[in-house]
Amino acid sequence: MSVTVPAGFRASGVTAGLKASGKPDLALVVNDGPLAVAAAVYTSNRCVAHPVRWSREVTADGSVRAVVLNSGGANCYTGPDGYATTAATAARVGAGVGCPATDIVVCSTGLIGDLLDREKLAAGVDAAVAALSGDGGRAAAEAIMTTDTHPKTVVRTAPGGWSVAGMAKGAGMLAPGLATMLVVLTTDADVDAATCAAALRAATRTTFDRLDSDGCMSTNDTVLLMASGAAGVTPAAAEFAEAVRAVCHDLTMLLLSDAEGSEHDITITVRGAASEDDAVEVGRAVARSNLFKCAVFGRDPNWGRILAAAGTTGAAFDPDAIDVAMNGVWICRGGQPGESRDLVDLTPRQVEVTVDLHAGAETATVWTNDLTHAYVHENSAYST
Amino acid sequence: MSVTVPAGFRASGVTAGLKASGKPDLALVVNDGPLAVAAAVYTSNRCVAHPVRWSREVTADGSVRAVVLNSGGANCYTGPDGYATTAATAARVGAGVGCPATDIVVCSTGLIGDLLDREKLAAGVDAAVAALSGDGGRAAAEAIMTTDTHPKTVVRTAPGGWSVAGMAKGAGMLAPGLATMLVVLTTDADVDAATCAAALRAATRTTFDRLDSDGCMSTNDTVLLMASGAAGVTPAAAEFAEAVRAVCHDLTMLLLSDAEGSEHDITITVRGAASEDDAVEVGRAVARSNLFKCAVFGRDPNWGRILAAAGTTGAAFDPDAIDVAMNGVWICRGGQPGESRDLVDLTPRQVEVTVDLHAGAETATVWTNDLTHAYVHENSAYST
Repeated sequence: MSVTVPAGFRASGVTAGLKASGKPDLALVVNDGPLAVAAAVYTSNRCVAHPVRWSREVTADGSVRAVVLNSGGANCYTGPDGYATTAATAARVGAGVGCPATDIVVCSTGLIGDLLDREKLAAGVDAAVAALSGDGGRAAAEAIMTTDTHPKTVVRTAPGGWSVAGMAKGAGMLAPGLATMLVVLTTDADVDAATCAAALRAATRTTFDRLDSDGCMSTNDTVLLMASGAAGVTPAAAEFAEAVRAVCHDLTMLLLSDAEGSEHDITITVRGAASEDDAVEVGRAVARSNLFKCAVFGRDPNWGRILAAAGTTGAAFDPDAIDVAMNGVWICRGGQPGESRDLVDLTPRQVEVTVDLHAGAETATVWTNDLTHAYVHENSAYST
Repeated sequence: MSVTVPAGFRASGVTAGLKASGKPDLALVVNDGPLAVAAAVYTSNRCVAHPVRWSREVTADGSVRAVVLNSGGANCYTGPDGYATTAATAARVGAGVGCPATDIVVCSTGLIGDLLDREKLAAGVDAAVAALSGDGGRAAAEAIMTTDTHPKTVVRTAPGGWSVAGMAKGAGMLAPGLATMLVVLTTDADVDAATCAAALRAATRTTFDRLDSDGCMSTNDTVLLMASGAAGVTPAAAEFAEAVRAVCHDLTMLLLSDAEGSEHDITITVRGAASEDDAVEVGRAVARSNLFKCAVFGRDPNWGRILAAAGTTGAAFDPDAIDVAMNGVWICRGGQPGESRDLVDLTPRQVEVTVDLHAGAETATVWTNDLTHAYVHENSAYST
């Protein structure tokens, strides 16, 4: 169900023929109102795909009627023809649901540098419009998958009779600068565009934006929140923001656990930082250390690689004061060996790393995965 | 021969027993003068090893009599005991060659976080002093190897009767912020400390500092240049600097081709940049893209991953103006597909990537390796 759980939304997922596998590859989510409120965040990559260029314009006024998403091709670095394909897709959806093309967000995912087949897309859009239904959320979530092994959906129902739901795709190129991947959130709360935008910005800042699976920032990342107002309930702004954050957090965890080739989900919490930015910088440096990620894959509690990564940052700390724990064992105290590394069990999928900088009171958490043979295999063979 | 080719140097390499393998693990290079001039550059990692802390003080006055290097342990994050071990090692060498401990540079390499056996080190130093000889350069180069598959030495002889030679170790954690790895350069030119320092800084800036094999900055990186003056020749500063640069370049290429698990040496040249810094930033971003590196391993000319990496930088360029070539084929023109990717042959070990930003006249080259199953294997099993 996912994105169609909140009242006022219909969705569908169909096979347009963009994927060689013949699996579903085109999803549509329509907001039937009464409101058509929306907010979005996009990748901060400067080399972005055409759907991002298009959709940034669409969402600027805080109003969106529908979002169409295709897998089977990112429509990125495809030149003016690629942009025309995105515009034509939006127009086709607009004609189908009865609104201007400029109220349609477009998302694409898949291989970079290949043109999409515009005729297949058009026929797929028509099929998706015809298939729209109040329980099409699951089909939509399936149609946006690429290397994902399962559809990713989350629903949070509030006591007051409204809800927030979301679907996401993403398994590689997971390292946002702002948002990440393709994510569609729906709510039937009666909220305005400013409330949506504030809630979404705040939510993505501490969820998707701190997932750094492989250090590679996507060209197509989009997170879209659409509000229908169909529940007729206006929650307090803080309550609404927390619901959006919770859904984003749960989707982030789904992305983490399905990252390409991963065998471990690694939670890196940096505490005792002089600032939240410092904590994030250190966490991200550790998350991007290939040597650390290989060590976790090998079930090796190699804390020296954590300190070596921290040392590349500009964060405030004394190298001789750092403590590091893995799965609760403080294997580094004051920048030198602490408890025995033999006490650390890295067999479970969940790995908790805690770095205490002893430089302040701020904290932040960054999530990443290990670097495995399967990751190398999947990403050396992706386009061939 | 390597570092003992220039007149005025003796060297040795012995087995101190620090390596479990029983292979040579302690090297000594002594400058017999008449000069004892030196310059050094060190890692810019803030979490550095004790030998780096010690040696930075030693080289501050531009005078060094000898350098002792051990493999089998990095002596990093080992606390006050670790620092005392470094100081004791320097003192032992000083007693052996007849100079104060403060004229002895110490370098260590190997696993982080383990204390070195001070008694084995002391006995090893005594053996190394006894073994010093005018043709000990090869033995020294062998004794500093860790995961290196062969010793790395370079000699350049100048027409005027002087020479520059060098030895290096390094195969992983190759991503310097300033210098990299352990490198000892010797020269018998009659040059002063300022000339040495200027030549070394300039040389490392465009050689070791632009080798980014795996994005991981070492805690022990040291490049030391020692001048004996024994040739009795004072070359022009520019001639000397070029000889030092050439030796550093050749050693960099040896490090590149022996990087852990690598199957490709990748040369990334960024041209048309508004500044040299921009060119380096873009080159390094590409060099650190795991997706790009996996693609090269898979012989997949996936230029989209190059643009996606460039897009994460702050360099000046228009994403719609970028051209990208791989091995001479311009597969991306103006940010969209150019010549057929089928024309690109990524079978050879050497891969040339050219990125033209069309934003200026500056250029820079960064070197990296592909990301392979063997890299993951080697670094997931290193300490176990």
